[in-house]
Amino acid sequence: MTTAQLAKRTEFLSKFYDAAPMKHTFKLELSFDNDGNAHFVLPYQKEFCHSLLDTHGGVIATMIDNAGWFTAATRYETWVNTSELTVRLHEPANQEELRAYGQIVRAGGKICVVSMEVKSASDRLVATGAGTFVVSEKVMKLPEDIS
Amino acid sequence: MTTAQLAKRTEFLSKFYDAAPMKHTFKLELSFDNDGNAHFVLPYQKEFCHSLLDTHGGVIATMIDNAGWFTAATRYETWVNTSELTVRLHEPANQEELRAYGQIVRAGGKICVVSMEVKSASDRLVATGAGTFVVSEKVMKLPEDIS
Amino acid sequence: MTTAQLAKRTEFLSKFYDAAPMKHTFKLELSFDNDGNAHFVLPYQKEFCHSLLDTHGGVIATMIDNAGWFTAATRYETWVNTSELTVRLHEPANQEELRAYGQIVRAGGKICVVSMEVKSASDRLVATGAGTFVVSEKVMKLPEDIS
Amino acid sequence: MTTAQLAKRTEFLSKFYDAAPMKHTFKLELSFDNDGNAHFVLPYQKEFCHSLLDTHGGVIATMIDNAGWFTAATRYETWVNTSELTVRLHEPANQEELRAYGQIVRAGGKICVVSMEVKSASDRLVATGAGTFVVSEKVMKLPEDIS
Repeated sequence: MTTAQLAKRTEFLSKFYDAAPMKHTFKLELSFDNDGNAHFVLPYQKEFCHSLLDTHGGVIATMIDNAGWFTAATRYETWVNTSELTVRLHEPANQEELRAYGQIVRAGGKICVVSMEVKSASDRLVATGAGTFVVSEKVMKLPEDIS
Repeated sequence: MTTAQLAKRTEFLSKFYDAAPMKHTFKLELSFDNDGNAHFVLPYQKEFCHSLLDTHGGVIATMIDNAGWFTAATRYETWVNTSELTVRLHEPANQEELRAYGQIVRAGGKICVVSMEVKSASDRLVATGAGTFVVSEKVMKLPEDIS
Repeated sequence: MTTAQLAKRTEFLSKFYDAAPMKHTFKLELSFDNDGNAHFVLPYQKEFCHSLLDTHGGVIATMIDNAGWFTAATRYETWVNTSELTVRLHEPANQEELRAYGQIVRAGGKICVVSMEVKSASDRLVATGAGTFVVSEKVMKLPEDIS
Repeated sequence: MTTAQLAKRTEFLSKFYDAAPMKHTFKLELSFDNDGNAHFVLPYQKEFCHSLLDTHGGVIATMIDNAGWFTAATRYETWVNTSELTVRLHEPANQEELRAYGQIVRAGGKICVVSMEVKSASDRLVATGAGTFVVSEKVMKLPEDIS
């Protein structure tokens, strides 16, 4: 994939993500690094906390899912589907802003495996994960272009 | 554990969950069956959807996390911490209400393993999962009783 | 799948497994129940033990892998490939004979998910697991029929 | 941990591993790098192959288990127990010698998480994995010193 192709693809995926209601609900912002790895930033928000008022593990899993999916999606023109996700929680978020990063482990013809990590604003390793994403044959489209 | 002890414990956990801001944000309702297995019900809500307007996988992971954690927590007086979570997504939610169920696999002295499943209102198997919960020595308290 | 079709398939798979050198190395015996779920039996053997002379976790993982793969393989005419495997070790084997069982969670067009458990001869739950098996397009053949 | 302490610990673990019957059965050799990460080398051996005469996934899982366990064990004086293991198989071994490497993700007080990878002699990424190891209170001893 050329730099131009990657830029075009990440632009498409950012536009695709803009259409996700959950983006706005979670205030979960997406960007891509130069290798096409997806980064997500989540501010601390009390409404996504468990009873002890720290960020819920499921919300961290949501970041990990997104970081994996959008990293996988840069490598294909077609849809990918999350099949399996492993999440390992190492430390509490401690009410810090969180950042999730995806990294391709192997982008195969049928399966893409991605590893993810979540760090706090103060650079603590909060969680790690990995996922299996199944590559479809259907070309991916923006929601507005799906009839 | 006697029936009375279990009833007392699940009442405590329900009260504990009431203090979770995420309960209200997700409208994610908790109940327990007679064996102490936690059940969660999530209505379809557009604000928790991905770009194709179906329930986001991370939100399903949140249900799975909760179903596992609250099922594990019935077996101990002390805190349990989610260490690791595996989520397997089988079918899209198709905008249906979702129900998550936990079931103890093994409640050991240091580790509790729980399996979980998520079904749609029409009884399709949407997701399954399993988790490793680490048993702490600290007795669990309600947020209001923690100074 | 009719009973006759399932019987034909499990007979084929048993023959296929006979050609596996590891079957004989591990003395790991395969059978199928009436639902097409694969069962494996492993006698206690000192040569597959770790330093404390109990059955090694990797050997238990081998049983889990086989129980999953052969259960998945009953549902397809084509090859399936193990993509991902989660193994949860609950109790030591305590030098007992071990029995592994597979059970289909969902047999989809591209992915088959199977859950597995390993019990000791005295019926203790030694391990559980689950796996993601990728369905290929290539029809499965016996080693002797592959040119 | 000082370099001297680490050297003493890895020497102890190598001696401990020498007592494992499975070491000799699999011809699976252990060494440690300067950071205390365990490395294992497995020659191609027909007797550990599946029906298509390539190294069985369970044998690769065995390498991953060992690489994780021995890497975790360098960080503690006490026993660690494998609780959970995720294995992702990316490519067949293609009858090559295999090398497994462990790397600490987080060594906590109760839980140690390790990531592992398996490469072929020609440096292909054959498998990756991660594991949860539970830290015990009992000081680890050589088999010959356990009465």
